[in-house]
Amino acid sequence: MRILIINPNSDLEMTAAIQRSADNFANGELDVVCKPTPGAPEFIETYEDQIRAAPGMIQLVRENEREFDAFIVACHCDPNLDVMKEITRKPVIGIGEASVKIASMLGHRFSVVSTAKHSIPNKEALIRKYHLQDLLASVRAPENETATASDEEKYLQAARSALEEDMAEVIVLGCAGMAGLDKRLEEKLGAPVLDGVTCALIIAAGLIKYGVSTSKIRRYNPEC
Amino acid sequence: MRILIINPNSDLEMTAAIQRSADNFANGELDVVCKPTPGAPEFIETYEDQIRAAPGMIQLVRENEREFDAFIVACHCDPNLDVMKEITRKPVIGIGEASVKIASMLGHRFSVVSTAKHSIPNKEALIRKYHLQDLLASVRAPENETATASDEEKYLQAARSALEEDMAEVIVLGCAGMAGLDKRLEEKLGAPVLDGVTCALIIAAGLIKYGVSTSKIRRYNPEC
Amino acid sequence: MRILIINPNSDLEMTAAIQRSADNFANGELDVVCKPTPGAPEFIETYEDQIRAAPGMIQLVRENEREFDAFIVACHCDPNLDVMKEITRKPVIGIGEASVKIASMLGHRFSVVSTAKHSIPNKEALIRKYHLQDLLASVRAPENETATASDEEKYLQAARSALEEDMAEVIVLGCAGMAGLDKRLEEKLGAPVLDGVTCALIIAAGLIKYGVSTSKIRRYNPEC
Amino acid sequence: MRILIINPNSDLEMTAAIQRSADNFANGELDVVCKPTPGAPEFIETYEDQIRAAPGMIQLVRENEREFDAFIVACHCDPNLDVMKEITRKPVIGIGEASVKIASMLGHRFSVVSTAKHSIPNKEALIRKYHLQDLLASVRAPENETATASDEEKYLQAARSALEEDMAEVIVLGCAGMAGLDKRLEEKLGAPVLDGVTCALIIAAGLIKYGVSTSKIRRYNPEC
Amino acid sequence: MRILIINPNSDLEMTAAIQRSADNFANGELDVVCKPTPGAPEFIETYEDQIRAAPGMIQLVRENEREFDAFIVACHCDPNLDVMKEITRKPVIGIGEASVKIASMLGHRFSVVSTAKHSIPNKEALIRKYHLQDLLASVRAPENETATASDEEKYLQAARSALEEDMAEVIVLGCAGMAGLDKRLEEKLGAPVLDGVTCALIIAAGLIKYGVSTSKIRRYNPEC
Amino acid sequence: MRILIINPNSDLEMTAAIQRSADNFANGELDVVCKPTPGAPEFIETYEDQIRAAPGMIQLVRENEREFDAFIVACHCDPNLDVMKEITRKPVIGIGEASVKIASMLGHRFSVVSTAKHSIPNKEALIRKYHLQDLLASVRAPENETATASDEEKYLQAARSALEEDMAEVIVLGCAGMAGLDKRLEEKLGAPVLDGVTCALIIAAGLIKYGVSTSKIRRYNPEC
Repeated sequence: MRILIINPNSDLEMTAAIQRSADNFANGELDVVCKPTPGAPEFIETYEDQIRAAPGMIQLVRENEREFDAFIVACHCDPNLDVMKEITRKPVIGIGEASVKIASMLGHRFSVVSTAKHSIPNKEALIRKYHLQDLLASVRAPENETATASDEEKYLQAARSALEEDMAEVIVLGCAGMAGLDKRLEEKLGAPVLDGVTCALIIAAGLIKYGVSTSKIRRYNPEC
Repeated sequence: MRILIINPNSDLEMTAAIQRSADNFANGELDVVCKPTPGAPEFIETYEDQIRAAPGMIQLVRENEREFDAFIVACHCDPNLDVMKEITRKPVIGIGEASVKIASMLGHRFSVVSTAKHSIPNKEALIRKYHLQDLLASVRAPENETATASDEEKYLQAARSALEEDMAEVIVLGCAGMAGLDKRLEEKLGAPVLDGVTCALIIAAGLIKYGVSTSKIRRYNPEC
Repeated sequence: MRILIINPNSDLEMTAAIQRSADNFANGELDVVCKPTPGAPEFIETYEDQIRAAPGMIQLVRENEREFDAFIVACHCDPNLDVMKEITRKPVIGIGEASVKIASMLGHRFSVVSTAKHSIPNKEALIRKYHLQDLLASVRAPENETATASDEEKYLQAARSALEEDMAEVIVLGCAGMAGLDKRLEEKLGAPVLDGVTCALIIAAGLIKYGVSTSKIRRYNPEC
Repeated sequence: MRILIINPNSDLEMTAAIQRSADNFANGELDVVCKPTPGAPEFIETYEDQIRAAPGMIQLVRENEREFDAFIVACHCDPNLDVMKEITRKPVIGIGEASVKIASMLGHRFSVVSTAKHSIPNKEALIRKYHLQDLLASVRAPENETATASDEEKYLQAARSALEEDMAEVIVLGCAGMAGLDKRLEEKLGAPVLDGVTCALIIAAGLIKYGVSTSKIRRYNPEC
Repeated sequence: MRILIINPNSDLEMTAAIQRSADNFANGELDVVCKPTPGAPEFIETYEDQIRAAPGMIQLVRENEREFDAFIVACHCDPNLDVMKEITRKPVIGIGEASVKIASMLGHRFSVVSTAKHSIPNKEALIRKYHLQDLLASVRAPENETATASDEEKYLQAARSALEEDMAEVIVLGCAGMAGLDKRLEEKLGAPVLDGVTCALIIAAGLIKYGVSTSKIRRYNPEC
Repeated sequence: MRILIINPNSDLEMTAAIQRSADNFANGELDVVCKPTPGAPEFIETYEDQIRAAPGMIQLVRENEREFDAFIVACHCDPNLDVMKEITRKPVIGIGEASVKIASMLGHRFSVVSTAKHSIPNKEALIRKYHLQDLLASVRAPENETATASDEEKYLQAARSALEEDMAEVIVLGCAGMAGLDKRLEEKLGAPVLDGVTCALIIAAGLIKYGVSTSKIRRYNPEC
């Protein structure tokens, strides 16, 4: 069972971090490879970044379709996910999609902890695309005033506010670059904290094993 | 990794069928046991049936909590799922919940094929509980006029109508007793057909491996 | 016209309080009896409490079906309401359902004042079940910091915050045990405050007089 | 306890029919008077008809506010209901509002049987105003092809189609002029059939008895 | 191309202000006339004010239908808009409707700045009528505590809070009487600020040029 | 006032047809230019087609930003609209967005007539993105069985079914390639038929004149 994790950006460090986190979950039972996207920006922040990542992402799927049994898109804004699902008959899972749907099975409402306020509208639009807007307690990004704290402390504080003020019961990490943070935050918060790549691996491995994939009846079939 | 599948009814034949289907998916990699519910009705059709199954289901969780790592409720109306999630810190997955959420990742809309017209309102209410009503193309039950056909043919016809007339792209089998039908229908329909128990096994096994479970922050914590 | 109010818990004091409040409203024109539920917990707080109350509630309906013309479930989380509606052809009204639907006719939005923060998710889920989530201004429970105040003062403060901060226009008392509080709070708040039992009596008495009851076409008919 | 039923049109025959139906329900226990609206059209069909009825409706409330304890607006499109609620501190109930909210307590979904296809959009908009659009199975009006049948037969046929094809479980009569039809249709259909005036009387009488009325906190207070 | 702007109130000063603002936008390319409504109140605040404005508004449409190519209702609560659309085959645009729909094309979410807290529920109901409630960040009215500030400063402060605290990205001026404020606020806020009359002129002029108007298929056709 | 219409495909014939239709509406008062997208596919049918059109579309905006005052994306699935809005401070309007929002002001519900059944899910997703799903009566594509008819006859038939069976009141043409069909269909149907390019020109010209554009507060600002 081989799964290709497509990191939509070209950053090698983040690619390595995702690989480590995935290996940790795979525990030798899954064969998981994470690749950066050729020609993509170093970080996916804007809509244009998403577009610039698309050709490389398509290329990665096409070049690796034979060797791999499923694909994961490892950026929490699920860039170009519809086209990924369209161009292959193998399962394709976005880490945004997988994480919010698993979150919805673990508690009343979830909050997403994001890297920056600027990304909040886009996260909200994404979660509405998956029809889960009424289960979203909030999208929280670190406040500026805590600027001297470490990133981890800022995310912890955002997550704590979500649990206490927004009535969230589950935390979703809103960036693939937060890989590894889930268990540390979970221990401090006493509530489930979900890493998107791990959630996507759960779904992707399950679908491979089950032998089901994206429906080619209509929406994701380029030839019908 | 041990998973207990709770068949909320007391029917031994259906219990065995679910066990076979689960073993087939588990493929020796998961230790899965399916048990019927002591004191439960032979079939869960009504709200009263659900209530009558509850004490035995609670007992099964309590008696098996140490030995098992996760629990699956194997009736597609997800009877007593909230109380199951409340009484244990181990993951609990309903086959209704798991199947519709996985369905939502595989195509534009899904339809549920149910055993009888009488169950349609309840299915609709369940799917709305999971906030996925706008992704539901239809709940279809076999029409009376095809009475001479086999059950399998009737379900096939209902699924085909869902794909063609209701614009569904994924089919969800709406009863644990349809175990084994998924791959046969899928082959004939050319669209994904999901068995709830298999979908729940994917999620349950994944959550165990990931080490996350139901949030005990508020809704499902009887002591807070 | 005889109405049986089923108190889903076994607490005699709360049963008596509900009886007093109902008698007060009935004013000799309705014959109303409130009974505690045999075998039920003393207070309904958790999903398991609801389940444990179910057998006694079903028994109360079955034993009293001939003598009474309608049934009221007098716990604001409407425990087991679907099964109650299923097992009898007489009207069954939940106090949660009746109070939020009457609230929706009296002002722009309503808030529910609940006993504890822990119950907020469940209340939200209940109100969404009745499709009125967009008319819900908030569910408010007393804050811890006002711990030295009396319960009545705490509920008053929660209701006042709902009116002023959450833009609620109507207050719904979120527990049958708050019986008698409605008029005292209403006087202080200058806004309608609804007691669930009274609201359910309005509907139940009206339905008896009108001669209509739960539809047995599909959802609530165990035999179709 | 005195209730004034405002018939928003000026038709004396319909006024008399509503009075008969109300007396029948009141059964001597309520003092109910139905009055036609001075200066109103003979039938309320268009938005302009609604506007033309408004001055007379306002006048009726103002002239009768002392003598009556509650007001009912007896046209199923609830014309000018917001202004009615605004100008008096006595309860005001629309028959559209009351009937669909009671319908929502009696079954999974309801259908409205209306006089003409032309009125369907307006009915849909009204029911969405009350946030119950997802509980609306359909608005049905008689089809042209059954033109030789009596009105009652046409409405019966529309209601039957709603129950069988649209999965409705409760029927709401969509015009005050259908007064008296409820019990005859109910007997033939085997499902609850609701007359709006009767539903409004249930709520109005209950609110008078309870001593609550429209919130004057904000929306319906012309002076705040 | 001649457009009649109907000011639903009878205030000559506001009529002149709207005329100036419209002339400013028209820039000699459109022939725009603003008229006060005969018999209407001086300011439209309540539901009764809306009703009292209706006869004069209908009269204005009927008397001017030949001479003008489109009508604009220039009160942000869109009073009597449905009847206006019904009685003429020329386009009729409400400034509330036009402004929120254009706002929805310019950013993630919009806020409405209103004159008084009392009007918030009505604005919310209006925006829900247009199905845009999920794009509404907030309706903001000036807080009492800033009472010494000028109206313009209060509205500026309300708009700023909407952008910063409610995550709005576009501001809609919630009263025709705020004409002229848009560009001054926009400059200070750095975000689009929309005046309803200008938005309605954009749509009305476009529809005239395009030669399309209200559909007379069903809802707005009094004769079908 | 100069507007650039970006035809996201590279087909010169369709580009010319759009130009003709735009010139016809512009009537010499607007300076409108339609350009095909360099490097784009000949027709935009799939998600991959949309991605392949993106670089050329971005290039067109960047190269023409100085000379033009607004941009229109002239494919009814609004491909890459978010990125277009992000990369320029000039207004950008999608023909899908503009047409459905104008349709929502002209009648109770609208239907989209599309070229093929395959595109229905994507259209539905697009309209839900604009929050107008509850105003969508249907997306209709020609049925196969009418295969001998001309395209125009097929679209006419689909539109007629939408008006009569789906209760639509306004028709939206679901492809830029249907330019010129609007008035011919409108005459036969007796209901408004909207061409997306014309609708977008109305909004774009209006925004230019008004001097407002996309909010750069957060979602569409790549630098904040």
